[in-house]
Amino acid sequence: MEKSDIGVIGLAVMGEGLALNLAGKGYRVSVYNRPHREKDVVKHFMQVHGEEGRFKGFDHLAAFVQSLTSPRKILMMVKAGSPVDEVIEQLLPLLQPGDILMDGGNSNFEDTERRVNYVESQGFYFIGAGISGGQEGALHGASIMPGGSEKAWPEVKEILQSIAAKAEDGSPCCEWMGKGGAGHFVKMVHNGIEYADMQLISEAYFVMKHMMGTGNAGIASWFETWNTGKLKSYLIEITADILRHKEKDGHFLLDRILDVAGQKGTGRWSVINAMELGVPLNLIATAVFQRDLSAEKELRMRTAAKYERDTPVFTHKPGVMIQEIHDALYASKIISYAQGFALMQQASLYFNWQLNQAAIARIWRAGCIIRAALLNPIAETFDHTPLLPNLLLASWFKAQIIETLPTWKSLLIKTTRENTAVPAFSAALNYFYSLTTAYLPANLIQAQRDYFGAHTFERTDAPRGEFFHEDWTGEGNDTHAGIYNA
Amino acid sequence: MEKSDIGVIGLAVMGEGLALNLAGKGYRVSVYNRPHREKDVVKHFMQVHGEEGRFKGFDHLAAFVQSLTSPRKILMMVKAGSPVDEVIEQLLPLLQPGDILMDGGNSNFEDTERRVNYVESQGFYFIGAGISGGQEGALHGASIMPGGSEKAWPEVKEILQSIAAKAEDGSPCCEWMGKGGAGHFVKMVHNGIEYADMQLISEAYFVMKHMMGTGNAGIASWFETWNTGKLKSYLIEITADILRHKEKDGHFLLDRILDVAGQKGTGRWSVINAMELGVPLNLIATAVFQRDLSAEKELRMRTAAKYERDTPVFTHKPGVMIQEIHDALYASKIISYAQGFALMQQASLYFNWQLNQAAIARIWRAGCIIRAALLNPIAETFDHTPLLPNLLLASWFKAQIIETLPTWKSLLIKTTRENTAVPAFSAALNYFYSLTTAYLPANLIQAQRDYFGAHTFERTDAPRGEFFHEDWTGEGNDTHAGIYNA
Repeated sequence: MEKSDIGVIGLAVMGEGLALNLAGKGYRVSVYNRPHREKDVVKHFMQVHGEEGRFKGFDHLAAFVQSLTSPRKILMMVKAGSPVDEVIEQLLPLLQPGDILMDGGNSNFEDTERRVNYVESQGFYFIGAGISGGQEGALHGASIMPGGSEKAWPEVKEILQSIAAKAEDGSPCCEWMGKGGAGHFVKMVHNGIEYADMQLISEAYFVMKHMMGTGNAGIASWFETWNTGKLKSYLIEITADILRHKEKDGHFLLDRILDVAGQKGTGRWSVINAMELGVPLNLIATAVFQRDLSAEKELRMRTAAKYERDTPVFTHKPGVMIQEIHDALYASKIISYAQGFALMQQASLYFNWQLNQAAIARIWRAGCIIRAALLNPIAETFDHTPLLPNLLLASWFKAQIIETLPTWKSLLIKTTRENTAVPAFSAALNYFYSLTTAYLPANLIQAQRDYFGAHTFERTDAPRGEFFHEDWTGEGNDTHAGIYNA
Repeated sequence: MEKSDIGVIGLAVMGEGLALNLAGKGYRVSVYNRPHREKDVVKHFMQVHGEEGRFKGFDHLAAFVQSLTSPRKILMMVKAGSPVDEVIEQLLPLLQPGDILMDGGNSNFEDTERRVNYVESQGFYFIGAGISGGQEGALHGASIMPGGSEKAWPEVKEILQSIAAKAEDGSPCCEWMGKGGAGHFVKMVHNGIEYADMQLISEAYFVMKHMMGTGNAGIASWFETWNTGKLKSYLIEITADILRHKEKDGHFLLDRILDVAGQKGTGRWSVINAMELGVPLNLIATAVFQRDLSAEKELRMRTAAKYERDTPVFTHKPGVMIQEIHDALYASKIISYAQGFALMQQASLYFNWQLNQAAIARIWRAGCIIRAALLNPIAETFDHTPLLPNLLLASWFKAQIIETLPTWKSLLIKTTRENTAVPAFSAALNYFYSLTTAYLPANLIQAQRDYFGAHTFERTDAPRGEFFHEDWTGEGNDTHAGIYNA
């Protein structure tokens, strides 16, 4: 019996889609799913797709592994967390040296880091591959971010690139990210940026709805127009679809969806890593906090009543304001990407991954949720200056910010005056102001820390790295640096 | 030989201060410090303080432990992290059942949680006590937040309360917080709030300096005035001192301190826990990000030059603007405390600590860095409604916000227009707007999540807890919830 080129474990939405995608590219695919109480997932899959002749279905893991050509390539599409470890443990006794395990779920990069080391210590290879694109991407081309055992990359490169989306220039949206957990780290930042993009779009919608009094169809038209310009992106495109979508009774579905947004963790992880690496990530943090606040529906209802805050409706004319909203969204999006790429740069230095930021921007141009026109100038910028510490230092981005600054500011003045929450637009502007401030008031903060905790300070008239302590009150004796943490 | 009432391990600034404080209250104190390469710390301490007759100094841990009355009470003042575990391991073989170890450092509450379980499993007690107040507080009265082995509390209550600061009403700033890591969690939030307070004060200073063109002495006068009103607090008080402080050559020291602020971790921990518990903590997060950005001095110099951003200096008259700055600082401080207490409330529910929020506000009224007049109404509010989910729901706080809102907004309109970074003032206002918005645009976010990832949504016309999925494009087949994480 002819052996399969690759095996897929887990036939939920993503695993099923990737298996079909692989078969569509001409690969022979073995599929396995753990036994299920209510339905025979593998049997169902084979009934629906078996006659295409490219699949072999298995109920038993050993037979599944036996069905693969050497070195075996096994793509795990199971729930992130302990299920991945459990499947690895089941697989290890069945493998031969050189076999390759791939985890295509949304695993935490630290878990992936650990699993790469563990699986390599057992004589096999492990790749943690972030995969974005949802069901659609799985089926027709995803953005794939593989990292881990570098020696295994040549073995799987052709397969993974074949099922990746293709950018407009034809290049596959799948490149090697780096060793260890690099692939899953990049995927985590991708998702974090996705959180911020969605928050920014929701703020644009909110302002149009409440400050221009525009209806859903009108708002949809603006997003549709924007999708032909600088803001062109998948999320802008589907926003127009969503705004137009009606129920059978003719009402807009969006107006009946509860304003409670869920989250599964990658946004929080991004912020936690930004905290640990010391990188300002205000936009993603704001997006996570706003989802948290959206979940506090009862509290918001009570607080709105307490403060007699009717949802404001104003009647600004679109003429000026639509440009202001567009520019606030566009500039804030640039800030968000600047922060996300700065986080990856810092992680790359810290973990010694040597991430290629231009390649990351390029593989995000198609297949994934944040695919957008803006990724082209980002890729070009990093091609030109690979270690640029912040996108805002690039002249192209400077020109974008300078052009949009007056209208962005103008919108924020109006939202402030008219009690309209735009936390991400506002955080972005304050980040821009802070980043371009040569002298922040942190001198006062450091003076306070030295005053109450003897934490010392550097001086503007002394070399960096020399630390001074002042006896501020004149009462103390020789104060030396203590254990008090400010 | 008469035995000592308590032992102190670690004679750095905090340990030394607490030992002196204990002796001053009439307790007999044994002190121990690990052997040191360069100097004999214990010998030095005994030379300086030995003749007071209250101390016994030890170079050997066993003799130190032997010198204590039963049950032994040992206060560890060593560096947070593995040093605490090392000292515990050294102590365990020397203890008798019922002995009490106390960790007064800035330990992570999860470490404390683990240590309480471990030490109790060995037959002893463990208390993790957050101690705030720096050297001054250690010497003359700190704010002390003990938690852990509840059975040990009656044994140490009198001692710890004796060295705690006393509030204006005479009550000691030391109360039992709860089991496990409760004490160190509360201390962590204390420090996080301290970060936000400092950031807010630095923004007020920044605005006065750049938008009013006020000099240090003038700014000091405003802070001094504010310290007689609603903003009365230790940090406002020392800010005036710092602003007035001159070097020998007559120059203000503050102007020569580099605008790079350090941090040691408790601010980051607060945000990480807010992320994990799902609580918006925008103010503390902003404060941490601004310190991160302050540390990127080179980048800011480059970006400021690139954008030709001179530090703005305007000449607003203090008449109106000083009130606006005051109100922005005051309202933002209220928001920050509302967020910090909401985080503790959520942690209390999650870890089943049953934190007493009123007691926490009360023990922060003296001794600690964030001591402030505002803690009185906070304590009264939680006395009245212990489980109030957010301080802004209390009528007293509503009145404060409503009164300051017009001037707070007015300031932010000016800072936005005049390119002045006030990220925390701004994040606070946007949180207030969001919290009091009954219908946030999160309906769009959840629609997007359902569109690309089949994450489902709740409906305004269906009960909470029922989840719906829409076939948005009309192309797909039956979509079921997948593993894609948005």
